[in-house]
Amino acid sequence: MSELAVRAEKLDAVDELAAKRAEFVLDEAVYLDGNSLGALPAAVPGRVADVVGRQWGELRIRSWDESGWWTAPERIGDLIAPLVGAAPGQIVVGDSTSVNVFKALVAVVRMAGEGRDEIVVDATTFPTDGYIAESAARMTGCTLRPVTPAEVPGVLSGRTAAVLLNHVDYRTGRLHDLPGLTAAVHAAGAVAVWDLCHSAGALPVGLDEHGVDLAVGCTYKYLNGGPGSPAYLYVRSDLQDRFDSPLPGWNSHAEPFGMRSAYEPAAGAVRGRVGTPDILSMLALEAALEVWDGVPIDAVRAKSLALTDFFLECVSAYVPEGRVESLTPVAHGERGSQVALRCSPTLGSARAGGAPIAGEVMKRLIERGVVGDFRHPDVLRFGFTPLYVGFADVERAARVLGETLSAGEFTAGSGRRTG
Amino acid sequence: MSELAVRAEKLDAVDELAAKRAEFVLDEAVYLDGNSLGALPAAVPGRVADVVGRQWGELRIRSWDESGWWTAPERIGDLIAPLVGAAPGQIVVGDSTSVNVFKALVAVVRMAGEGRDEIVVDATTFPTDGYIAESAARMTGCTLRPVTPAEVPGVLSGRTAAVLLNHVDYRTGRLHDLPGLTAAVHAAGAVAVWDLCHSAGALPVGLDEHGVDLAVGCTYKYLNGGPGSPAYLYVRSDLQDRFDSPLPGWNSHAEPFGMRSAYEPAAGAVRGRVGTPDILSMLALEAALEVWDGVPIDAVRAKSLALTDFFLECVSAYVPEGRVESLTPVAHGERGSQVALRCSPTLGSARAGGAPIAGEVMKRLIERGVVGDFRHPDVLRFGFTPLYVGFADVERAARVLGETLSAGEFTAGSGRRTG
Repeated sequence: MSELAVRAEKLDAVDELAAKRAEFVLDEAVYLDGNSLGALPAAVPGRVADVVGRQWGELRIRSWDESGWWTAPERIGDLIAPLVGAAPGQIVVGDSTSVNVFKALVAVVRMAGEGRDEIVVDATTFPTDGYIAESAARMTGCTLRPVTPAEVPGVLSGRTAAVLLNHVDYRTGRLHDLPGLTAAVHAAGAVAVWDLCHSAGALPVGLDEHGVDLAVGCTYKYLNGGPGSPAYLYVRSDLQDRFDSPLPGWNSHAEPFGMRSAYEPAAGAVRGRVGTPDILSMLALEAALEVWDGVPIDAVRAKSLALTDFFLECVSAYVPEGRVESLTPVAHGERGSQVALRCSPTLGSARAGGAPIAGEVMKRLIERGVVGDFRHPDVLRFGFTPLYVGFADVERAARVLGETLSAGEFTAGSGRRTG
Repeated sequence: MSELAVRAEKLDAVDELAAKRAEFVLDEAVYLDGNSLGALPAAVPGRVADVVGRQWGELRIRSWDESGWWTAPERIGDLIAPLVGAAPGQIVVGDSTSVNVFKALVAVVRMAGEGRDEIVVDATTFPTDGYIAESAARMTGCTLRPVTPAEVPGVLSGRTAAVLLNHVDYRTGRLHDLPGLTAAVHAAGAVAVWDLCHSAGALPVGLDEHGVDLAVGCTYKYLNGGPGSPAYLYVRSDLQDRFDSPLPGWNSHAEPFGMRSAYEPAAGAVRGRVGTPDILSMLALEAALEVWDGVPIDAVRAKSLALTDFFLECVSAYVPEGRVESLTPVAHGERGSQVALRCSPTLGSARAGGAPIAGEVMKRLIERGVVGDFRHPDVLRFGFTPLYVGFADVERAARVLGETLSAGEFTAGSGRRTG
């Protein structure tokens, strides 16, 4: 057993979150793709069977009241709240992240003062945020300014209405400075909207503490809500009265069953709702969130950093020099819960024509039970979910990566698959 | 056994759809609320268990390809297509009805010619359509004109950009003239958007045949997709290239995994997608749609009309004269698949102060196993789902309604519950 494997064993033995793994359905594979789709929490199948078979099948329409379907969006929002540092009553679950970005951006432009007609957006963001920001700008008569997060403070002005930022970059795993950037946005008199898709459930967000205005996020990554589970919207309580939604569906009406022809928005987080909530997915998410009972998010962050530190160390030890380079910052303050390795043929390999190999490398890893994902054109992404990934997993993943890149297929001079 | 009960038995004996009932999970109650939440199709629990346990739990991220998750929105759209008279490739499933109304209305305003700046909307529509239409008008610089469907032809002009109509009124069950109104809208050079929530799965819609431009609908009523199951959007094939979505999420990109910062819309129905599809609910819907295998929608319509005819006849026979009045048209061409009965204390009862009794009447019906619903302030709604409601159910429902309204609690002179 290698020195790193021995250390992994010791680290797992003292891991205070180690027991959480038993609350997930996992197999012998090392699952490092929880930053894309979280693993199945063991409580979900039984809950979903009850929602389908009893709540829908037997109680049918009565479940809107008796099974708490109607109030699920706010109730589940309050389960997410402590994970992102929010007091209750500010988060509502529903719709996709893209739809929530649209609601948030249009609403904040409507809150902005006279003469503020620019939306600043992270140009390196997950694409959907940029596309939706462009639509929100077009529909509100604003100009879109795509810049890197580092450039944000320099472009803020009296014309800035809103700034949309990602807490963690989906590609590189870089953690952006939420407190500092939010303060800069506020100093310019503008409103900050944060996308928490890649941070919620992986590290402390501190929405209330840092005075974030609005935030959105998905629930199928570190929150393990299942494929395409509903997203959420946070509107800080003192802004809720000014939240003027571009999607004022009947679920956000002050009296939804009054069936009135005039729209009158509800008070509170409910105002962020739109249409009938998607109950099956929503209640699967509610069951999934039970794994967080008694889990301090600071302990999650500490383990996350230990896992990614250890992974980087193992990669250095096992992967031949120069074959991969990390795109993820070394500094803890700039790192989310994933490691992105650039893996290109120009890095120590002589594959003809510089054809991309990262996609094929990831296929080999998956065949050997190490599941990460590939992002075009040359990035291997590995996500570390502290609730179910252990240190032995990390050592094995790096070892398999090293062996794969040392194999004939991907070494210098091999032209076998250059087609 | 009454004459009506004998007739019900005979009608059930020759009902060619009677066997379909066995494909649903039902009990001894008469479920006449399928126009709000369809009953559970028997195929759903097993399918959902497989989606959760195997597809998510075991295959995890691989299911996006291997379990067909990624293509579900179009695939399931094509399952709905024959039920609404659409050729394949024009329907995409996802988001709520409200969100789809927004996409549709903004897109059609963008298709409209110069000088067209009015959106005409059914003032008697389900409220969310009106709220969303108001938002779409506000965000596109249009004026909203709420009118009754009968008034629509008279207000169409060279300024009309779009007309949003409901195929069947949610409250009265009135079926509107989709072919005639669509032709009138087209004659005025405008675009017609139809909301099919209360018609799809209950009667032939004929989207292609009648040249409807865009349409939306939910899937949890007569399509039995489950609580809050995803809605759908129809964009006629020759309009798809001009469909310019206000919600251009990454799922509607021509190359979603290219992760490009510039938006380029996909061709076809896919363009109506937004964010990551909600897989659990979507695949539950896919299983639910299997009950339609081999069911001609014309047979559904014939049985639906026979059921509502018979219900109205039984109500006349069993309910004391003048205690209820039907808001649902008698003419078949104007009737959907529900019957709405106005039930107010002024109708033959001397309840003090004219206090509403419909809500209490519905409670008693539900206690006696006849499940309809109540719409403020005085409407009893009964939905007739031809796939699982039989004629004996209809006779029993009317009989229980008659007995309830004949009981002391609701008869003339009773002031017991006037608080």
